[in-house]
Amino acid sequence: MSLTLLIGNKNYSSWSMRPWVLMKAMEIPFEERALRFDFTPDSAFYKEVRAVAPTGKVPVLVEDGLAVWDSLAIVEYLAERFPDRGVWPTDRARRARARTVCAEMHSGFGALRSHCPMNIDADLQTVGPQLLAREPALRADLERIGQLWTDTLQACGGPFLFGTFSAADAFFAPVVMRVTRYGLPLPPLAQAYAQRLEATPAVQDWVAAALAEKDFLDFEEPYRDVSGPVPVLKPVI
Amino acid sequence: MSLTLLIGNKNYSSWSMRPWVLMKAMEIPFEERALRFDFTPDSAFYKEVRAVAPTGKVPVLVEDGLAVWDSLAIVEYLAERFPDRGVWPTDRARRARARTVCAEMHSGFGALRSHCPMNIDADLQTVGPQLLAREPALRADLERIGQLWTDTLQACGGPFLFGTFSAADAFFAPVVMRVTRYGLPLPPLAQAYAQRLEATPAVQDWVAAALAEKDFLDFEEPYRDVSGPVPVLKPVI
Repeated sequence: MSLTLLIGNKNYSSWSMRPWVLMKAMEIPFEERALRFDFTPDSAFYKEVRAVAPTGKVPVLVEDGLAVWDSLAIVEYLAERFPDRGVWPTDRARRARARTVCAEMHSGFGALRSHCPMNIDADLQTVGPQLLAREPALRADLERIGQLWTDTLQACGGPFLFGTFSAADAFFAPVVMRVTRYGLPLPPLAQAYAQRLEATPAVQDWVAAALAEKDFLDFEEPYRDVSGPVPVLKPVI
Repeated sequence: MSLTLLIGNKNYSSWSMRPWVLMKAMEIPFEERALRFDFTPDSAFYKEVRAVAPTGKVPVLVEDGLAVWDSLAIVEYLAERFPDRGVWPTDRARRARARTVCAEMHSGFGALRSHCPMNIDADLQTVGPQLLAREPALRADLERIGQLWTDTLQACGGPFLFGTFSAADAFFAPVVMRVTRYGLPLPPLAQAYAQRLEATPAVQDWVAAALAEKDFLDFEEPYRDVSGPVPVLKPVI
């Protein structure tokens, strides 16, 4: 039996980052299949993804012909498949809370997603504050992130959201990428957590690979002109 | 130990409908706490929800001081708490697939949600086709629903998505409400499934209570004028 994880560009694919970081952090061996984003109808990307997943989206985890095409369902699959790795907290109440915040992330934070798409390579420190000033929904999303991290760290004592590293931390790793790249302010405990999470080897490995890609896609770059030899910031407002 | 489920207006609250229908169908006893939607800052709705859930959103399941404030996390909580009820399919591959389609529903179908908000009382048969003609993203969402239901029914043999009734059916119950009220066309197998799901006692009980409410809220009614004694259709396009 072997696990294969289909992912998109590491610089941009926030959904792919979650299970990848989780599996690395949990030392679950898997084969990575990196596919370059191309959302034109008959692209090689769609051809390969749709061979296993009807949605045509990544990430997809495949094992023995069984495809799991959603990042939260992948987490539950891994938790069942590797019950001793601590994918979820062992304490029942903490596990319920960890699932709650992951599912909250999964269905929500639309403003953070749309206004601040993940772009690990980009320095958008001047962009984030302008977006925050303009978009009340983005301010609300960021406020909720700060509250969620702070409350959870205080309740469980850190260093990660539920004590030791769990799926919840993997789920928020892309949010850390947004916070740091867009220069979004957080309360002190949440800020320190973001730094700790970014410093984990699993996140560092993903970031290093994302920075090495240098594969800039115009449709993923609302704030940079990537048509020239190096990306250049565009005016935002 | 007793379970309390906080929900919103039955006519409108699609997220509340899922765990409610699941718990009824699984014969899991719970106390229902129905709260009238009111999204003004210091409303009674927010006061009661925020006492247990920092998001201020429903549904919330509360047991012994532990609050689970997301519908998908509630499903996992119930699956652990009542392991013999068949919340998820017992077959490992079917369970992975059931979680996948629930999580796909949880994070996606934005066009279906925004253009066709659940409104069980409303006859929007003339509205749906106009929306479909105008909105390509709505057409894509509906096509995916038809494909998802058809593929799953064919793979598992029906009558419900994964054979017997499971959390996946409860998760798609609000979609059935949209499909029938907005007159959205589906392929034959999917159409027949929608009728079967609507006919289950759990869904029928929710629908009957929704119709009895007669509590029409202007901010939930993009297509009807509800200021008079009876709701009246507004022109759409």
